[in-house]
Amino acid sequence: MEALPELEEGLVAPLDRDPSQPLLQKDRLTNATTGISHMAIVGADGSLIESLDYEVLESDLFKQDWRARTQCEVLQYVILKWTFAFLVGLFTGLVGIIINVAVENIAGAKLMYTAKLIYSNQLVLAFSLVTGCNVVLVLCSALLCVYLGPAAAGSGIPEVKAYLNGVDAPEILSPKTLFVKVLGSIGSVAGGLYVGKEGPLVHIGACIASLLGQGGSRKHHLTFSWLRLFKNDRDRRDLVTCGAAAGVAAAFRAPVGGVLFALEEAASWWRSSLLWRTFFTTAVVAVVLRLGSNWCRVGHCGLFGKGGLIMFDVSKGSSTYGFPELFAVMILGLSGGILGSLFNALNTRICIFYAKNFNLLILSRKGPAAKIFLACFVAVVTSVCCFGLPWLAPCRPCPQLTLPYECPTYDRSGNFKSFHCPTGQYNDLAGLVFTTNDDAIRNLFSTGTQKEYHYTSIIIFFVASYIMALLTYGIAVPSGLFIPVILCGATYGRLIGMLSTTMYDLKGLDEGVYAVLGAAAFLGGSMRMTVSLCVILLELTNNLSMLPLIMLVLLASKTVGDSFNMAIYNLHLKIKGFPILEAHPEPFMHQLTARDAVKSPLVKFSPVERVGNVMHILRTTKHSAFPVIEEPLSPKATFAGLVLRSHLLILLKKKDFYFTRSSSTMSCRKISSGEFAKPGSGKGLTIEDIEVTPEEEDMYVILHPIINASPYTVLDTMSLAKAYTLFRQLGLRHICVMPRKPEGEPILGILTRHDFMHDHLLSIHPHLRSSLLKDRSFLRQASSDRHP
Amino acid sequence: MEALPELEEGLVAPLDRDPSQPLLQKDRLTNATTGISHMAIVGADGSLIESLDYEVLESDLFKQDWRARTQCEVLQYVILKWTFAFLVGLFTGLVGIIINVAVENIAGAKLMYTAKLIYSNQLVLAFSLVTGCNVVLVLCSALLCVYLGPAAAGSGIPEVKAYLNGVDAPEILSPKTLFVKVLGSIGSVAGGLYVGKEGPLVHIGACIASLLGQGGSRKHHLTFSWLRLFKNDRDRRDLVTCGAAAGVAAAFRAPVGGVLFALEEAASWWRSSLLWRTFFTTAVVAVVLRLGSNWCRVGHCGLFGKGGLIMFDVSKGSSTYGFPELFAVMILGLSGGILGSLFNALNTRICIFYAKNFNLLILSRKGPAAKIFLACFVAVVTSVCCFGLPWLAPCRPCPQLTLPYECPTYDRSGNFKSFHCPTGQYNDLAGLVFTTNDDAIRNLFSTGTQKEYHYTSIIIFFVASYIMALLTYGIAVPSGLFIPVILCGATYGRLIGMLSTTMYDLKGLDEGVYAVLGAAAFLGGSMRMTVSLCVILLELTNNLSMLPLIMLVLLASKTVGDSFNMAIYNLHLKIKGFPILEAHPEPFMHQLTARDAVKSPLVKFSPVERVGNVMHILRTTKHSAFPVIEEPLSPKATFAGLVLRSHLLILLKKKDFYFTRSSSTMSCRKISSGEFAKPGSGKGLTIEDIEVTPEEEDMYVILHPIINASPYTVLDTMSLAKAYTLFRQLGLRHICVMPRKPEGEPILGILTRHDFMHDHLLSIHPHLRSSLLKDRSFLRQASSDRHP
Repeated sequence: MEALPELEEGLVAPLDRDPSQPLLQKDRLTNATTGISHMAIVGADGSLIESLDYEVLESDLFKQDWRARTQCEVLQYVILKWTFAFLVGLFTGLVGIIINVAVENIAGAKLMYTAKLIYSNQLVLAFSLVTGCNVVLVLCSALLCVYLGPAAAGSGIPEVKAYLNGVDAPEILSPKTLFVKVLGSIGSVAGGLYVGKEGPLVHIGACIASLLGQGGSRKHHLTFSWLRLFKNDRDRRDLVTCGAAAGVAAAFRAPVGGVLFALEEAASWWRSSLLWRTFFTTAVVAVVLRLGSNWCRVGHCGLFGKGGLIMFDVSKGSSTYGFPELFAVMILGLSGGILGSLFNALNTRICIFYAKNFNLLILSRKGPAAKIFLACFVAVVTSVCCFGLPWLAPCRPCPQLTLPYECPTYDRSGNFKSFHCPTGQYNDLAGLVFTTNDDAIRNLFSTGTQKEYHYTSIIIFFVASYIMALLTYGIAVPSGLFIPVILCGATYGRLIGMLSTTMYDLKGLDEGVYAVLGAAAFLGGSMRMTVSLCVILLELTNNLSMLPLIMLVLLASKTVGDSFNMAIYNLHLKIKGFPILEAHPEPFMHQLTARDAVKSPLVKFSPVERVGNVMHILRTTKHSAFPVIEEPLSPKATFAGLVLRSHLLILLKKKDFYFTRSSSTMSCRKISSGEFAKPGSGKGLTIEDIEVTPEEEDMYVILHPIINASPYTVLDTMSLAKAYTLFRQLGLRHICVMPRKPEGEPILGILTRHDFMHDHLLSIHPHLRSSLLKDRSFLRQASSDRHP
Repeated sequence: MEALPELEEGLVAPLDRDPSQPLLQKDRLTNATTGISHMAIVGADGSLIESLDYEVLESDLFKQDWRARTQCEVLQYVILKWTFAFLVGLFTGLVGIIINVAVENIAGAKLMYTAKLIYSNQLVLAFSLVTGCNVVLVLCSALLCVYLGPAAAGSGIPEVKAYLNGVDAPEILSPKTLFVKVLGSIGSVAGGLYVGKEGPLVHIGACIASLLGQGGSRKHHLTFSWLRLFKNDRDRRDLVTCGAAAGVAAAFRAPVGGVLFALEEAASWWRSSLLWRTFFTTAVVAVVLRLGSNWCRVGHCGLFGKGGLIMFDVSKGSSTYGFPELFAVMILGLSGGILGSLFNALNTRICIFYAKNFNLLILSRKGPAAKIFLACFVAVVTSVCCFGLPWLAPCRPCPQLTLPYECPTYDRSGNFKSFHCPTGQYNDLAGLVFTTNDDAIRNLFSTGTQKEYHYTSIIIFFVASYIMALLTYGIAVPSGLFIPVILCGATYGRLIGMLSTTMYDLKGLDEGVYAVLGAAAFLGGSMRMTVSLCVILLELTNNLSMLPLIMLVLLASKTVGDSFNMAIYNLHLKIKGFPILEAHPEPFMHQLTARDAVKSPLVKFSPVERVGNVMHILRTTKHSAFPVIEEPLSPKATFAGLVLRSHLLILLKKKDFYFTRSSSTMSCRKISSGEFAKPGSGKGLTIEDIEVTPEEEDMYVILHPIINASPYTVLDTMSLAKAYTLFRQLGLRHICVMPRKPEGEPILGILTRHDFMHDHLLSIHPHLRSSLLKDRSFLRQASSDRHP
């Protein structure tokens, strides 16, 4: 019964860490590719990453509970489930509208006043206004992010992916994070940064779902007893999946795309009944958005006009194309794949640079000044671009043709911006940089506007947006990645379109259609989604006839991108150090058996255990589950099952102790299973919460009612790859490794998420590094796919 | 080592059955709801249903093979995988075009000549022509179906679903079935029956995929050695999933819808890498269809015009709607759900009636005459409808407005058919019944044709098509269900649309849009898909602005339908007796443990076994796997692993026998793992293929190299529901039940698919029937969902 001071499940104890020690030291678990610890701290107040557990616990207590459940409770559960799905959709839709309206008003006012100042030739004042507004907005956003909700920085999609993969980092779905994410993304988007509100909306949807499932704060007595049915990881995961889908649906007005995004990108586990519920949630979002935008269109929302709720109608783009056009599109797809994967590679390096030099590693609260400085610096650079770049482009006369677009416009939106030009002329670069990102994309996508842009302007804007997008994603503000990638891609696509329509005289496709395809190519090359991106783009542009072209481009760019590096969200998951389980085991895991991965000696309990022993073990280890062995001294010891640390703590807290060891004389006192329901993240008991007197330490506690008598087991001869499949597919937290031979211990050890981690396995089996190097070819993924 | 003559995995030995005995006798495994044996024979020549196995076998032989695999072989595998995905798309697309062209030409010629005869008032001749053509076409189809490929009858989607759920019934994906399905669906669709070619195309896609993976017939030496990498159930499953998606893509020109159909309806297991490959396959289909239809449009395909390759353009339907329209749409969705589920209920009863009275039970070859008679009878009734119904509608003058449609038309297609009417008049009912189903749907969906149809005509056609669809799905011809359901739904929707536009004066939505929504309501009410139906309908009608309405209707109709009965394909799976594993275990399985379900005594082997023993056990049992126990006589017997029957048979066939038992003196002779690769369905060795002399019977065979040393195991105390989750999620064929207490046998038994079957469990635990009755409420599904 030795206590082991070993770490489990990617846990670190940051409070034990010497604060002067650099966070990025190369320890034995350092990530080989990024140089960042796989066990990076998420959250700064000493709370730790835990695994979620989707196993059905079959302890006596839960079995009784299940048998006692009435039809009425089941009905209550079903009603609640659908009510929650409805509420997630409703709230996410409303938040989406609020963010849109706020951004449109703030950024609109800013641009309008600046345009007026430029028109009256007060250039210094105009520049100061733009820069001042942007820095203040970004500063607010960064302050909130750094001091209140560090988990709200960045896109949020990696965090949601991690949660749905079974990683429960505290704060990532907390009310504080939600609050910061909403206000912060208004600030960063309205502040003119090259960021979007799409990733943050996914995170917001997930936060709303998680909070609904927890039923509000327990501290403030806002939780309800009938929510106990939802107090488990499975139901929370389902709700969060609905929330992620709702976020995409709200961001792009793409209900089907939202469902597919949740399925393809966000979720690690999927059930067909969930498809149905997610679909309902996104339908609710679609209705809310429709009602909201109708209400805004009649003038209730200030400056909110057609600019809000991005929806780029490209339905008029002609789509009669032949092989020359297809060739141009193919080139676009392939080069988009290269540029997209280059974006991933450069952004990863920049983020690591930021992390090392600005203490920006994930959610750590160290060096707030550096982080805030970095955010403000990026805001200033962005403002300089926004105001300075249009001066590089000469004024051009408005086209003579009668267009559906006004020329020039003095307003904040419109294709042909006047900027500083004399009457009848426009500045094409101002229409791209001196506007909101949504409007810039709309201008690039606009059809029937051949020769609106000139090569130099498009190339300048492409380089600027690519660099700014690279620099911006990684600073400490909520920052979505969809919009910058779409912006770069659309510019690049428009450039290719201009080349093919003017230089090679291909008239089949409109320049606006090329811009859409360029956006698809960059998205495919960077994010590597397929079906969901395709549907999102179709719903966004409202033109189904582009489907084959978009499919072609996505296939090309994803194939090219995959041969260089991983998808950007996966790279960021690695940088942030979340212990993610990929869909397939690494090939080298076929060479290890389950026995090779277990730790020994094992920490174990008897079914009736001394309170002092339990307290000692809980204090000195960090394991989250312990095997219970009957008659541990006899040669015929029997494995009785697993007990969870969280359940032990609750049992100790209840002080249900006995004076004698013999369990025949006493019956277990009334414990309701509701008390063992899982609390929200970071709200559980810790060993420090429990006070036991020396007299109580000599008493006994009966573990029987909380023993999970049938955990999932594997034989010790099973290859680790096969055990990984079991672990990953069923979403487990613990697998018991049983000996094939009946001699010796009845259980050899417990496998957890940590034991399947790549770096951990290589550190305890260094001889595998050579075989790993062999695998590091482009065939690696293919061969791991081969052995699912 | 007693042999058990028990059945396993839903197997029956049809050759042992007394032929005079009725097939539908109520035995202990009779399906409670349909009165049909759960173990119905699939295929009539004595071949049996088997389970597929997606477990990675970790025997010495396969491990060696995996280690010896070179980078080159892995590259070969990756290239082959994508080549196959490409070929599946290419062939399915081509077959789709061929079927379309054939149907359009045959049905077109038939209708054209009949129209000419009617115009020249030779009515008897016209009627004889229609009826004669239809009967001959349907007769050919039925003859092929009954005598050559009984597995080709019906839609084929249940069979594909069953295969992807892990049920390997012989013939369902064989070359014969493919041949019959292609010719048969041309016959039945061109023969004017109320059937579609969509379900058959899904089946055709799956057959093509399965045949490609098997690499042609081994009998005719058409298989290639490098295909051995694909000779396992996992890769075949992936290919068949691609095939199913390609089928839908080819049927509806809906590539994204095809992927979603495969995901939502067809597949039971899904991997994200498969999404990507399926998407590629359907993209290929889309390109093939586009090229094909462009080639046909310039006149290379005879009568094939805009009628072929269904694509109902409803993009002009106005979609400005308010609450009154939404109310009408909601009514449409709810009543569509009722009528759709009524369709399921009635069709199930009719199919059971057919099965009992026309010996039509699934694929049995009994009573061919009765089946063929039934098919011809339905063909005659359909012809009477087609020719007779238009006489019930009076001739009406063509509308005065200038329409985009000609009026009247004498051709085979067009909205306003002349039929027998004088010049300037048209028969509205003829435009629906005296045409192909595709054209009828196009006419119903057509926008801007208010008041084209009259109430009586629409009501007559609705009743006729509903009854004919009910009667037709179940006869022995390939018959898709999508088109008849869309036809009924569109008629119903048009009726509701006419009521709301004329009686309540709601002008927001076009009658054609109501028809599309009606089709959605019936599809949702009958097939219960959500996202995939939504996307298919959007791609079919090319109008994204209908998305919220279609979502609303699908949500309403699925909810209503689910409260009455199961989806129609699931009902047909039940009727056909496929032992399907649903996504969730039945609630009563929580009351049983794994120990309650295992059979005893166990049939087992030693690692070195007498050949005579092996032969005896293989002859007298039907088990597909046997546990191997080391030292079976000592008290410390050890479980060594599982051997598969198929591997034992191959080992015996190789005659790798030894004279002594002691394995230390001999090394295993060279056996290559390629010989143990899984053959195509129904092509494996049987015990009858193996001849052993009496001398050989006394020799020994070494099982070591083929023992799977790490099968998945569960403790005997685990509830059956939890074991079911493991079995279903990982796609297993065998789970070993291990004792928790180390005394006694080292393994208690093996759980197979059969042991999880509802009816089997109830037959051995009759006391659970009462608890089951309690569960049979509408909450049943919800509560099983509760405990995944």
